[in-house]
Amino acid sequence: MKQLTILKIGGNILDSPVLLNSMLDNFASLKGCKILIHGGGKIANVLMKQLGIEPKMVEGRRITDEKTLEIVTQVYAGLINKNLVSSLQARSCNALGLTGADGNTIPAVKRPVKEIDYGFVGDVDTTLINAASINGLIELGFVPVFAPLTHDGKGSMLNTNADTIASSLAISLAKFYNVKLIYCFEKNGVLSDPNDENSVIRKINEEAFTDYKSKGIIHSGMIPKLDNAFSALKAGVVEIVICGPAAFSSSHPISGTSIHL
Amino acid sequence: MKQLTILKIGGNILDSPVLLNSMLDNFASLKGCKILIHGGGKIANVLMKQLGIEPKMVEGRRITDEKTLEIVTQVYAGLINKNLVSSLQARSCNALGLTGADGNTIPAVKRPVKEIDYGFVGDVDTTLINAASINGLIELGFVPVFAPLTHDGKGSMLNTNADTIASSLAISLAKFYNVKLIYCFEKNGVLSDPNDENSVIRKINEEAFTDYKSKGIIHSGMIPKLDNAFSALKAGVVEIVICGPAAFSSSHPISGTSIHL
Repeated sequence: MKQLTILKIGGNILDSPVLLNSMLDNFASLKGCKILIHGGGKIANVLMKQLGIEPKMVEGRRITDEKTLEIVTQVYAGLINKNLVSSLQARSCNALGLTGADGNTIPAVKRPVKEIDYGFVGDVDTTLINAASINGLIELGFVPVFAPLTHDGKGSMLNTNADTIASSLAISLAKFYNVKLIYCFEKNGVLSDPNDENSVIRKINEEAFTDYKSKGIIHSGMIPKLDNAFSALKAGVVEIVICGPAAFSSSHPISGTSIHL
Repeated sequence: MKQLTILKIGGNILDSPVLLNSMLDNFASLKGCKILIHGGGKIANVLMKQLGIEPKMVEGRRITDEKTLEIVTQVYAGLINKNLVSSLQARSCNALGLTGADGNTIPAVKRPVKEIDYGFVGDVDTTLINAASINGLIELGFVPVFAPLTHDGKGSMLNTNADTIASSLAISLAKFYNVKLIYCFEKNGVLSDPNDENSVIRKINEEAFTDYKSKGIIHSGMIPKLDNAFSALKAGVVEIVICGPAAFSSSHPISGTSIHL
């Protein structure tokens, strides 16, 4: 099977022109099939504040009411996505911007209201992703650039976590490709000492993960991240890397934490 | 050759939920290959005013400075394009939203500054349109929905007239398809009496056009529109229809003015 690299970049890269340009250079020069997925929450918050709307968050998660949905659709699918696409085109990378509505690539279900009403937020069922359509676009030579939006199939866009889109696409496309999934977030990788950015654990397999957990070296927010990573690996993804923006600040190959079964 | 219908809709349809829904129903039910092109200037103006920015127009044409480019990119490629795409998906029409940057489908050149500096506005060279890529998307079963934006290949998006994108795509795709180009604008068609919306001239060929011009029945702004239409027909487009929103307000086939060589 062919190789496919899926790179998810977080807001810390979008917010820094220097990191953004390095990332774009590196991504454009990556050989083989590839997909880029971006977030953009901080930039959406700026526009919301300019329009006098206060972003609503519950436990770090955005509540997407109708007006918020309009704004994130503009910012994610319009401003950020098209700037990334035109910037990649300038680097001879044949980027094509998508949301999950485009070509019905990622259908989703509006999150059922339980204790919290998250509003227009989409939950993705990996088995419903149109992997064949996405594969068709890649086969035509396009490099998909996904904004973190899906749709409900009834005419509404839905706001969807970019990490979730990345892992869902990785699992879904594992039937066509050897998928390497790279999450670029604010830390340099999984750290053995949270206060030391140089303490990146280079490799973690499931046995080591159990060990790190029992010793309290890996704890709190990193546990669900790694649980998700191992789920994706068990669903067929070949390799997952968690790295920080520093991975894009030089011409060195991407460093960070490599996660294997 | 296969048939391809290219429909360009103006702001009068986007501004009316009733007309918009009728248009979407009709467009979704159109048989065969099709492309939708939309504008959205009025909606961009609303966001600009909310942000305290006064739209700059010279002789009816927008001056696109850097901030304006950001806003039209958000509104055209984000809000309007994704609402159209998700609304068409809800009608089982496999819409895929694009700007000219996506897949480098429509490269453009920033308009040279002469008497007026239009700013980030793109002029399209029909011969540089990537018709093969657009054809590839159509062959995959997608229905392209174009926002009125192109790019300069150097990393910048460019604002581009939606009528121009429509005729440029029609000419460029005429090598693959029998292209029918439909312009939907604010009048019901080419009128023999500008004060009577029922005075639509049903058919115009070049001979009739010369005759109508000499009699002063067709004049002012309609002359360049029809000149462009005849240029497109000479470049291989099979049929051009100019119609009004009323063409989408019932289940009747699209009426209006049909233009042939």
